[in-house]
Amino acid sequence: MNDWLLRPTAAIDPTARAAARARQRQLTKPPGALGRLEILAEDFAGWQGRAVPRLERVDVCVFAADHGVAARGVSAFPQAVTGQMIANFATGGAAVAVLARAGDARLTVVNLGTVEPLPAAAGVLDLQLAPGSADFTLTPALTPPLLEAALAAGRARVDAAASLFIGGEMGIGNTTSAAAVLAGLLDVAPEAAIGRGTGVDDAGLARKREAIAAGLARHGGDWRALAGPERALAVLQRVGGLEIAALAGAFVAAAQAGVPVLVDGFITTVAALAACAINPGTRDWLLFAHRSAEAGHGRALAALEAEPLLDLGMRLGEGSGAVVALSLLRSALVVHADMATFADAGVADGGGGE
Amino acid sequence: MNDWLLRPTAAIDPTARAAARARQRQLTKPPGALGRLEILAEDFAGWQGRAVPRLERVDVCVFAADHGVAARGVSAFPQAVTGQMIANFATGGAAVAVLARAGDARLTVVNLGTVEPLPAAAGVLDLQLAPGSADFTLTPALTPPLLEAALAAGRARVDAAASLFIGGEMGIGNTTSAAAVLAGLLDVAPEAAIGRGTGVDDAGLARKREAIAAGLARHGGDWRALAGPERALAVLQRVGGLEIAALAGAFVAAAQAGVPVLVDGFITTVAALAACAINPGTRDWLLFAHRSAEAGHGRALAALEAEPLLDLGMRLGEGSGAVVALSLLRSALVVHADMATFADAGVADGGGGE
Repeated sequence: MNDWLLRPTAAIDPTARAAARARQRQLTKPPGALGRLEILAEDFAGWQGRAVPRLERVDVCVFAADHGVAARGVSAFPQAVTGQMIANFATGGAAVAVLARAGDARLTVVNLGTVEPLPAAAGVLDLQLAPGSADFTLTPALTPPLLEAALAAGRARVDAAASLFIGGEMGIGNTTSAAAVLAGLLDVAPEAAIGRGTGVDDAGLARKREAIAAGLARHGGDWRALAGPERALAVLQRVGGLEIAALAGAFVAAAQAGVPVLVDGFITTVAALAACAINPGTRDWLLFAHRSAEAGHGRALAALEAEPLLDLGMRLGEGSGAVVALSLLRSALVVHADMATFADAGVADGGGGE
Repeated sequence: MNDWLLRPTAAIDPTARAAARARQRQLTKPPGALGRLEILAEDFAGWQGRAVPRLERVDVCVFAADHGVAARGVSAFPQAVTGQMIANFATGGAAVAVLARAGDARLTVVNLGTVEPLPAAAGVLDLQLAPGSADFTLTPALTPPLLEAALAAGRARVDAAASLFIGGEMGIGNTTSAAAVLAGLLDVAPEAAIGRGTGVDDAGLARKREAIAAGLARHGGDWRALAGPERALAVLQRVGGLEIAALAGAFVAAAQAGVPVLVDGFITTVAALAACAINPGTRDWLLFAHRSAEAGHGRALAALEAEPLLDLGMRLGEGSGAVVALSLLRSALVVHADMATFADAGVADGGGGE
């Protein structure tokens, strides 16, 4: 199963990267004065194989699914909200939909499986692989074929014609699943992985911790002797979720197709951590949008040695933080492409007041 | 002189702010999940006096001038670059010009005074109040009438019809002038206020420190017994610069006109500090775009209790960091305006995966 996951990721073009770096030095500003915007332009040059990269098409795909662990009282919201929010993505009222529209990105919504089947709705790819994942405190969250199908569903959403892929997620209970995956991948205690998600109180936080502890106690022995892709797949199957697996599959596939990924918040970063454990070359194709207010996010970022672009206290998920950060990528690429060089502008040596 | 500076700043509308806050609670997301984007929407509601604010017109004004203190060898670039960069702003090749165009903001370029008069150029408001400021190690940087004219030139660029004002600056040597102003306003040592600017080496940094120390030694007695607006005006006149004074004048005038200001980097933040010392109500109309890589910026931000939106290692000036951050304001206002409410979307209670 899943042989495609281990295929090599695309190569980065060092010549184009160097050419972009050389171009930055010719632009009318002191060297380095645009900070991370310069690095972003160089990154995209390496990814696109041209000295002057462009963001021609940005794909945002929101993967949604329900989580059996929601039965443990780990969310402040009823499970019906997953399906209701799927409709809200499709009709354009959710944050990520508004931001994608304003930011000229294409939004796709994929339902991997809700507790209640959804009514047919325009704008939703309704896969309904299962009525959500199972409660991992009692049984593995996914069967092996479901894991395979979810990974493949993520892969299927990656189009090599895109300049950038953004993955989002929705699923009541999914900060608990993601925290369990994080704890399983890094071998850390539940306390180190959890946060308040959509806003649970202290009792809800205690229930999250207990649910994750129960999941680790029940399934940890299945992966503790494993490493690399085997371990990551075992963790995803035992305590993950359909949308988390789909995100991991999409991220690996994007790296294989040569499409860079802008990673959103806690859940997508955990999926990215799983993707990199499955296929380490994936890491070279990831950018990190923001530092979420969700407590476990810092640990996931640290494990990936990731320095996100933004820190705005966001904790919504959906891909919303990534679509906000998209504007920074656009700024980086437009100054790189359109600024005058010293020669063009007849400037002596450099400029810029600071 | 300058009686207008002390006139009251515009009032913020608490009712509109509260209505925006109430609207945020009805949008289809957990309360607070959009972090600072929610606060930004509330800020603009208070400034604009309506629950659903819009960024209809953004004015970016770059103020340029030369600095006599450049003679002390404090910059890595020759003074001729000030005039060359003014042309580069006007023809659209400089970073701030590229970003303003991409970000749908109106750019104005004002020359307050260069060492050599500029050839006539389209797109530059050429005031040429003086051939730059004087070398403050030897004499006051500005005469009192020049300070008054520079403050008034800033004020004249503020149009009450704008939704947002961004001030930029250009002037070889102006990180040294700004650091001297910072040291004078806060009574700190030159070491605490300086950085490498456009990229001076260790010897250049030592020359900056010495120049500022000389300026403080020569002029500090003129302001040390003063406080409030008198002190700030004395510091600006003795060790400031034409564009720093213009920025301070623009910021006070914007607050009086009810136009919020998005403050850029080190030099503009020092100008904002001066503006707030002159007229403390100005502070209520300021947002801070980014934390510059310039060493003294953190101290200026701390004095203003400012938490900037971005930290991307930028240190270009020109207003460039503010125009990059403008996209975050647009994101904040579009989600606030266009997201569905729970009632609109038929969502039970809230949503969002994290």
